[in-house]
Amino acid sequence: MTEVGGTASGIRDQALRCRAAAQALAQLDTAAKDALLRAMAQALEDDADAILAANARDLEAARAKGIAGAMLDRLALDGKRLSGIADALREVAALPDPVGQVTRRETRPNGIRVERVRVPLGVIAMIYEARPNVTADAAALCIKAGNGVILRGGSEAIHSNTAIAAALQRALREAGLDEAVLTLVADLRRETMLELLQLTDIVDLAIPRGGEGLIRFVAEHARVPVIKHYKGVCHLYVDRAADLELALRLLLDGKASRPGVCNALETLLVHADVAAAFLPQAAAALRARGVEVRGDEATCALVADAKPATEDDYAAEFLDLIIAVRVVPDLDAAIDHVRRYTSDHTEVIASGDEAAARRFVDSLRSAVVMVNASSRFSDGGELGLGAEIGISTTRLHSYGPMGLEALTVERFVVRGDGQVRHPDLL
Amino acid sequence: MTEVGGTASGIRDQALRCRAAAQALAQLDTAAKDALLRAMAQALEDDADAILAANARDLEAARAKGIAGAMLDRLALDGKRLSGIADALREVAALPDPVGQVTRRETRPNGIRVERVRVPLGVIAMIYEARPNVTADAAALCIKAGNGVILRGGSEAIHSNTAIAAALQRALREAGLDEAVLTLVADLRRETMLELLQLTDIVDLAIPRGGEGLIRFVAEHARVPVIKHYKGVCHLYVDRAADLELALRLLLDGKASRPGVCNALETLLVHADVAAAFLPQAAAALRARGVEVRGDEATCALVADAKPATEDDYAAEFLDLIIAVRVVPDLDAAIDHVRRYTSDHTEVIASGDEAAARRFVDSLRSAVVMVNASSRFSDGGELGLGAEIGISTTRLHSYGPMGLEALTVERFVVRGDGQVRHPDLL
Repeated sequence: MTEVGGTASGIRDQALRCRAAAQALAQLDTAAKDALLRAMAQALEDDADAILAANARDLEAARAKGIAGAMLDRLALDGKRLSGIADALREVAALPDPVGQVTRRETRPNGIRVERVRVPLGVIAMIYEARPNVTADAAALCIKAGNGVILRGGSEAIHSNTAIAAALQRALREAGLDEAVLTLVADLRRETMLELLQLTDIVDLAIPRGGEGLIRFVAEHARVPVIKHYKGVCHLYVDRAADLELALRLLLDGKASRPGVCNALETLLVHADVAAAFLPQAAAALRARGVEVRGDEATCALVADAKPATEDDYAAEFLDLIIAVRVVPDLDAAIDHVRRYTSDHTEVIASGDEAAARRFVDSLRSAVVMVNASSRFSDGGELGLGAEIGISTTRLHSYGPMGLEALTVERFVVRGDGQVRHPDLL
Repeated sequence: MTEVGGTASGIRDQALRCRAAAQALAQLDTAAKDALLRAMAQALEDDADAILAANARDLEAARAKGIAGAMLDRLALDGKRLSGIADALREVAALPDPVGQVTRRETRPNGIRVERVRVPLGVIAMIYEARPNVTADAAALCIKAGNGVILRGGSEAIHSNTAIAAALQRALREAGLDEAVLTLVADLRRETMLELLQLTDIVDLAIPRGGEGLIRFVAEHARVPVIKHYKGVCHLYVDRAADLELALRLLLDGKASRPGVCNALETLLVHADVAAAFLPQAAAALRARGVEVRGDEATCALVADAKPATEDDYAAEFLDLIIAVRVVPDLDAAIDHVRRYTSDHTEVIASGDEAAARRFVDSLRSAVVMVNASSRFSDGGELGLGAEIGISTTRLHSYGPMGLEALTVERFVVRGDGQVRHPDLL
């Protein structure tokens, strides 16, 4: 039953309006949604000047607050980045529509026809930090899957987000929809975000994206369902039966190609039988790429400049050119290590021994387990989802990279010819 | 990373032990799990005397507390009911195993093979009231899907539950597993249940089963994910194009065959064009089955003994021989009514007009929507799930009746030949 009633912040009323607008969106067919997404892309390009001017205000304020480096870079837009965002919307338009998909079909002995059909989740709240591209990316994915979206971005990007949202909302209005399908929260007080996260009768899912602090805050305070991952402590285990050249490729790609992302490697485990053959060579290659090695005793004995690893190093998501290394006596010890320190994100085994690989896969419960492939493929695009709204290490609904399908749920549609359960009672 | 640390109640240590035991269970193949379930069934039959004696103690205590009627009946076991519980375990053994199912398979352009594979959720906490059969039913479904289960039943059934759990745990031990796979919480203090519901690093899902009060308590206090439904306010809409004889069958089956269950009908909506032809006849048939009609003005004008319906009647889950009735001018008004009062459980349309039926289905977001079939089919067994662990009106993970599959999640298993994401950087 619809509850009505405003609050001081107005967030409840905004969320109710988003939900009502989403009901109309959910009635659109795929062609109409795709046209809408292309119009949204065009609106971003049409508003490029206004969006870049708004972004310049954010950048100026950020610099005045002393923000610099990677964080300032994440906030910055230019013509090329904005075109990239618009193109990403067109790519979402080109993806298959999960809504309406019939995933199973069965006729029961009594003749009723039972279908499982994908429907939108409803209203999704995105809570994120400084990247203004999330405003458009997340909105596009939610809308393609027929959902209303409530966007609560960081204060650093508020002018950019407002300008982007204004362009996208114009496209929504021109398609005959209520612009509240995409609701940008202008009131950035923390208590208003908390209020949003309590709206269990309106918001079907909250997805936090950003640093571990933000994600823990959302997970600890939300009453609406939350799908999130805190961090990616990804392991590579080099088995006794590994092709060591292959293992080295996985190690360098996993650690050094982009250390600041969640699917980068943080820990290397090496079977004792191949440690002497693998580690000195691996350490040299890591060193050449600026990677610091922190190892256990056996590692330090083989790698001259390795620092001793602490317990904390094995639990750490460095997001940096640092790797924790341990030599393990066997596969079981590798599995035990991963079980102890895993963040349930991604684990990799390099091995030519199919039985060992199978045992590694079956013994670990992480969202993604790879055999002889780089951890860096743990990504919605790379795994074939077309796009990624986030990564889940919550073992419910969706586990691992989440694409459009994760923004829907299957329900039951049943057709009969008057069947009843107790004809004898009629 | 595994956190260790006891608490006064010991519930955290119990849950950790359950999780460790579940890891061993998850390694079992289908044949081993099915043999275990059959041994559990046999153990219940072997312990019949002890279980019935324990149940007699619960019944005595319940009578002393003044419990009677349906609640006492839910608590009561006899030889026949116990055989039924054992047979239900054998039926679970015979169901297909969702664990290990490969739901999708794709080779990406770079040659990596991506599979989506079903894995157990991990540890499931069942919170329930007086029915001791839930102890065995829920344990069987959780175990078949490879999960550890923590059972927290009501105090009224504590002796019965303890005796049932002891039998099932003996079968677990005899299969070489730690009996903690099935953990019965003996400490029934409310604060201990609250502590259990905060164990976000151990418990993957809580499923409350019982009255709306219990379910709201769990949903409002849990930090672990909860899947639940509060109530079933199920609607039948009799369209202008309905076969009125068929509609009457759906009405009587839905309202009168078992009014105390969540898939029983609570509200009847009738298109104005057929109200005069349908309602007097329908009311007479309902009256003959002891059903009280509460209607709007138009209904009261057609049905002499109808009482006026209040706003609350349209929101009510009567679970009784009462039905709220409204005459609506058209399909849109029926849809609006359902949207306003739905509990997202089950809605039914009786109509021979395929376009009207499609619009009814597409416009409503309830977990189950039926065309020309009784709401009473909204049940895991009837819809082909084999068994039912609960019903979800949470639009996440599982929506509607939940079977074994809902106790698993899909993860990614990737196999390659040394593929990396940035070969150019090596």
